[in-house]
Amino acid sequence: MRVVIALGGNALLRRGEPLTAENQRDNVRRAARSIATVLEHGHQAVITHGNGPQVGLLALQSHAYKPSEVFPLDVLGAETEGMIGYLIEQELENAYAADAGYATLLTQIEVDPNDLAFTNPTKPVGPVFNKAEADRLAVERGWTMAPDGASFRRVVPSPTPLRIIEIGVIRRLVDQGVIVICAGGGGIPVVRCVDGMLFGVEGVIDKDRASGLLARELGADALVMLTDVDGVYNNWGTPEKQLIRAASPAQLRDREFAAGSMGPKVEAACDFVEATGGMAGIGALDDAIHILNGSTGTVIRRD
Amino acid sequence: MRVVIALGGNALLRRGEPLTAENQRDNVRRAARSIATVLEHGHQAVITHGNGPQVGLLALQSHAYKPSEVFPLDVLGAETEGMIGYLIEQELENAYAADAGYATLLTQIEVDPNDLAFTNPTKPVGPVFNKAEADRLAVERGWTMAPDGASFRRVVPSPTPLRIIEIGVIRRLVDQGVIVICAGGGGIPVVRCVDGMLFGVEGVIDKDRASGLLARELGADALVMLTDVDGVYNNWGTPEKQLIRAASPAQLRDREFAAGSMGPKVEAACDFVEATGGMAGIGALDDAIHILNGSTGTVIRRD
Repeated sequence: MRVVIALGGNALLRRGEPLTAENQRDNVRRAARSIATVLEHGHQAVITHGNGPQVGLLALQSHAYKPSEVFPLDVLGAETEGMIGYLIEQELENAYAADAGYATLLTQIEVDPNDLAFTNPTKPVGPVFNKAEADRLAVERGWTMAPDGASFRRVVPSPTPLRIIEIGVIRRLVDQGVIVICAGGGGIPVVRCVDGMLFGVEGVIDKDRASGLLARELGADALVMLTDVDGVYNNWGTPEKQLIRAASPAQLRDREFAAGSMGPKVEAACDFVEATGGMAGIGALDDAIHILNGSTGTVIRRD
Repeated sequence: MRVVIALGGNALLRRGEPLTAENQRDNVRRAARSIATVLEHGHQAVITHGNGPQVGLLALQSHAYKPSEVFPLDVLGAETEGMIGYLIEQELENAYAADAGYATLLTQIEVDPNDLAFTNPTKPVGPVFNKAEADRLAVERGWTMAPDGASFRRVVPSPTPLRIIEIGVIRRLVDQGVIVICAGGGGIPVVRCVDGMLFGVEGVIDKDRASGLLARELGADALVMLTDVDGVYNNWGTPEKQLIRAASPAQLRDREFAAGSMGPKVEAACDFVEATGGMAGIGALDDAIHILNGSTGTVIRRD
């Protein structure tokens, strides 16, 4: 089977953990061992990853050094593709010797310059702040801050991914058996001008939506999203919460899931299954092969 | 011809310019137009780039935000491969429509853990500082600071590149006509432990030496190094300075050139020409095709 495996930005950094290189590496190592089990079973894997905590941190670092020379989000997103892609590739190499090797590819994804997301930022990035800090950041930096539980986080525009600029090269490598790491952080959002020129825009594409687009474009058999919970729940956050072990897209479309976390995963899963007839799975970082086999997590298939 | 084109980190950021995303993009655009002329002549190009100013800046940003959680140089190097690779790929796409597309590949390069460079840092990174600032940074951060003209810069270990981990994938793509951007910042330095595991080390490989290794591994016909001067000079920095238009490796081996800038370029050029019989060229950012044709810059060939 050809499987697109999406690693959540939060799975690479557990809640409350400081975003150090060591913590990221420890979590990436766990993810790599999990992915290695999929490769050991003879499946072909294409790996994507989120970057919410990381891109927000790099924005804070850039601001802390020179507030007047802060890098835009497309450039910071490119930095996270390098940083996280490096850790994933190196730990995967250490976990599994792939015959045709690994390739981490910088990925740009075209979005619509008129996407309504640009006037309605929803994607949380970076660490959590208290109310006073959030208010100060909103005034000092012009950032949009939104509630996240009892805390606040910066939110940025998250436009819909339309077209993967490097898809030809990605398909070429995957067809030749190379294990590709791409579309990191949902891909760098770019728009194409009337004269055909590409340029980057300020936003962060949701990596689950980007992974779904990638899975469709590559004719993948499965889309597996690994995160910091063990599947999709009914009544999440209540004593009656219940893991959904299997569902059809129609069964999930009726329900509400958390925007910015489980919501986009469920949407990407449903879109992929409806469009291709393949399977989608959502579950815990360590469980990649078990989710793919349907023995744990939430599996979404056509009726 | 198959040509490896190395873009100097300083060529992507002119001396004295603030390291903003805009300034980098403007210089990358110039480089892209220059490389496009090589592609328009039907040559096959593989592009590498330096990262001295950039990796030093990211270290300062990381320190400015949380001094206790600063990222190590391998991770920062990976960030610069993403950032600079993104700008180069996007501007190249805008300058020249390549049939088989572009691929920016994260690149790790194996070094010897016992390389003497680890105890003798020589590679300048980041901005220039005055004496007082340099002394403070040396004490506060344990950095090694070295004179750079009348100023000071941080210097880091620059181990010899031995083996490009991703060479199989790079060769595969280049053979198929894809224009590859790789070995950014000289590649991320990694060592292989006795158990075969890879891990990153604190250093910055010289990008000219890495480019020379890449050119030999790919069987390139030419190695062109673009920088902020128009070639190699005799008596540089004196009124008698004189551009060397053509030379053999033997003629250049006798002379002394600036360590950390022209020295490694001349060494990489001589090594490549001696090992392969190909040609090497050194010259200004805008002159790629003219250097390749031998009509400007410094051309190094066998006698």
